[in-house]
Amino acid sequence: MFTTVLTRGPVVRPEIARITGLSSAAVTKAVKPMIEAGYLEELPQGERAVEGAGRPAYPLAVRADREFFVGVKVTADELIGVVTDLRAQVRDAHRMAVSGRSVEQVVADIAALVRELGPEYAERTHHLGLSVSGDVDRPGGVVRYSPFLGWHDVPLAELVAGETALMVTVENDVKALTVAEQWFGEGVGADSFALATVGVGIGCGLVVGGRLVAGGYGVAGEIGHVPVAAGDGPACHCGARGCVEAIASEEAIVGRARAVSGDPALDMAGAIERAHGGDAAVRAVFAEAGQAIGLGLAAMVNLVGPERVVVSGEGLAAYDLFEEDIRAAFTTQLFGAAARCPLVVRPLPWEEWARGAASVSIQSLFAA
Amino acid sequence: MFTTVLTRGPVVRPEIARITGLSSAAVTKAVKPMIEAGYLEELPQGERAVEGAGRPAYPLAVRADREFFVGVKVTADELIGVVTDLRAQVRDAHRMAVSGRSVEQVVADIAALVRELGPEYAERTHHLGLSVSGDVDRPGGVVRYSPFLGWHDVPLAELVAGETALMVTVENDVKALTVAEQWFGEGVGADSFALATVGVGIGCGLVVGGRLVAGGYGVAGEIGHVPVAAGDGPACHCGARGCVEAIASEEAIVGRARAVSGDPALDMAGAIERAHGGDAAVRAVFAEAGQAIGLGLAAMVNLVGPERVVVSGEGLAAYDLFEEDIRAAFTTQLFGAAARCPLVVRPLPWEEWARGAASVSIQSLFAA
Ligand SMILES: [Zn+2]
Ligand SMILES: [Zn+2]
Repeated sequence: MFTTVLTRGPVVRPEIARITGLSSAAVTKAVKPMIEAGYLEELPQGERAVEGAGRPAYPLAVRADREFFVGVKVTADELIGVVTDLRAQVRDAHRMAVSGRSVEQVVADIAALVRELGPEYAERTHHLGLSVSGDVDRPGGVVRYSPFLGWHDVPLAELVAGETALMVTVENDVKALTVAEQWFGEGVGADSFALATVGVGIGCGLVVGGRLVAGGYGVAGEIGHVPVAAGDGPACHCGARGCVEAIASEEAIVGRARAVSGDPALDMAGAIERAHGGDAAVRAVFAEAGQAIGLGLAAMVNLVGPERVVVSGEGLAAYDLFEEDIRAAFTTQLFGAAARCPLVVRPLPWEEWARGAASVSIQSLFAA
Repeated sequence: MFTTVLTRGPVVRPEIARITGLSSAAVTKAVKPMIEAGYLEELPQGERAVEGAGRPAYPLAVRADREFFVGVKVTADELIGVVTDLRAQVRDAHRMAVSGRSVEQVVADIAALVRELGPEYAERTHHLGLSVSGDVDRPGGVVRYSPFLGWHDVPLAELVAGETALMVTVENDVKALTVAEQWFGEGVGADSFALATVGVGIGCGLVVGGRLVAGGYGVAGEIGHVPVAAGDGPACHCGARGCVEAIASEEAIVGRARAVSGDPALDMAGAIERAHGGDAAVRAVFAEAGQAIGLGLAAMVNLVGPERVVVSGEGLAAYDLFEEDIRAAFTTQLFGAAARCPLVVRPLPWEEWARGAASVSIQSLFAA
């Protein structure tokens, strides 16, 4: 209900009833406490065209400045933080290098970043969303496994709540980004869609039946661990072989590029440069990675059947080296009518990921 | 609402309200026309213990014999038909060999089978569900692609409706079986589960958020076309390489078993016999198939995160030859907490598949 007003903008009660399938009476009843609590407000008539005649309908809108939310994307090197309003519009943003990867250091850094972020919003900020890559238990507030931070079973929500006095939600970074896309991006109005991210790791957020797929055990969308070359593929950090991430993660690409170029100091930027410069062996490394990503995406589409797939992530810097192979493998592998599923590429800056974390904390307010 | 009464048995209105999250008033309002149309009835009090005191609550039950439904599972060689009541209890069952695989022959055979099935139910039968393997467009009533029948874009619902004067629903066979499991089997009460079938093909029905995943383009659960050995894997009938079905379908197993045994006349039963007799090369063919199935199942669990996986299908005759490899590959490939997802094996006879088709036709009655 609230999400309808949030994602569609000012909207009259009959339209809410139509979209949600609730009765007019149910909408009126549900809306009342939200108006009383100041989260929704009635706009003067005429701010939006009202269809039909009859008695006047006052559009309902979210009171964006009723409350503010902090979202922080935690990476292995840097924290990216934003303050948003209730409509998830970014009001302030700030980045900070982490002082180290230990739990204590990262918790202290998050608390410091929160203090720096828009102090003028602090009084009306009660919720903080954190987004971390890896296996996250959102209901428990625990980072169960973060390969890039080297963490196992860290009760991050509790630790950060202790330092910030905010109510803290922790979510997998790709799932958090998917929530933001579902509410405010490519996913608005779609019954199902997938957001895949290519970069340090390969992740995927899924929306099915209008809901983010959480996984029965908190794991879902792990496109990076689809086995596309199981027999003799390279070992993956997850313990299996031939996973998409074992071929197409940044670490995998750099490792292979070092091997084929004979340059043990090569980094990702250097590998991209070599490939752009025409180094056929390094180009082949990117091509193989692109093929693995395309196959992983196709496996996901064959299994889940989203209406569309959005590809994003920091790995887009190399996208021109991948794209042809991603699309070729994707198209070849799609089964039957799934071939109609469009694949669109969209760059999303880091602040968009932090906004995803803030969106999750907005969700947690209304779940409570 | 109706599904709640259908799957939980006799249930009082307050319990319906609790399960569905609807208000008591909404339940009472929704129930009234269903009682008037004879689909639901109030039982005399005491047929089920009523919790708490207060005014008497009469449990509601489905009137099972209000209407009957025909379900037919169409295979390449045989039609398996059942008549069920409104609770999907089988009242009559019949099998018939198909006279050929042309559309005309199969349509005529289905009509003949329907005439033979329990004539005493015919007067109160208005809906027929057909289940067919392959790519099925349920809303359009079209079999878009059935590899085993060799069909492309066949408007099967329309053709069979013309011959039987019934309202016909066509669904992918695995999805139809999943509906039956969701309503009456392992899936009752689960927010998410997966039903995988091993046999001529490898299929999978998925329930996420309590709903069957249909796929944005009608394709979902295609575990058979997850590419697990993409680089140098065998060609698949779908046009790709290294799919699970290219390694583990009955055709793939028989083909490889013929090659390694040097017996070009070997069939599936013969391959199973050889493996049971200790033929190491043929055993290895089954082991590879088991590994491919386990990897496909794990890819599905890593992506979709079901609470549990049920494995069934006619291929269970060879299950002892697969099982160890299925479980080993499944366990190795699961990511993080997804390792807690149980894999249970359950044989389902062909009549259960036909009951799935009938369940889909019960659904279509209430969707109308
Ligand atoms: Zn892996
Ligand atoms: Zn295939």
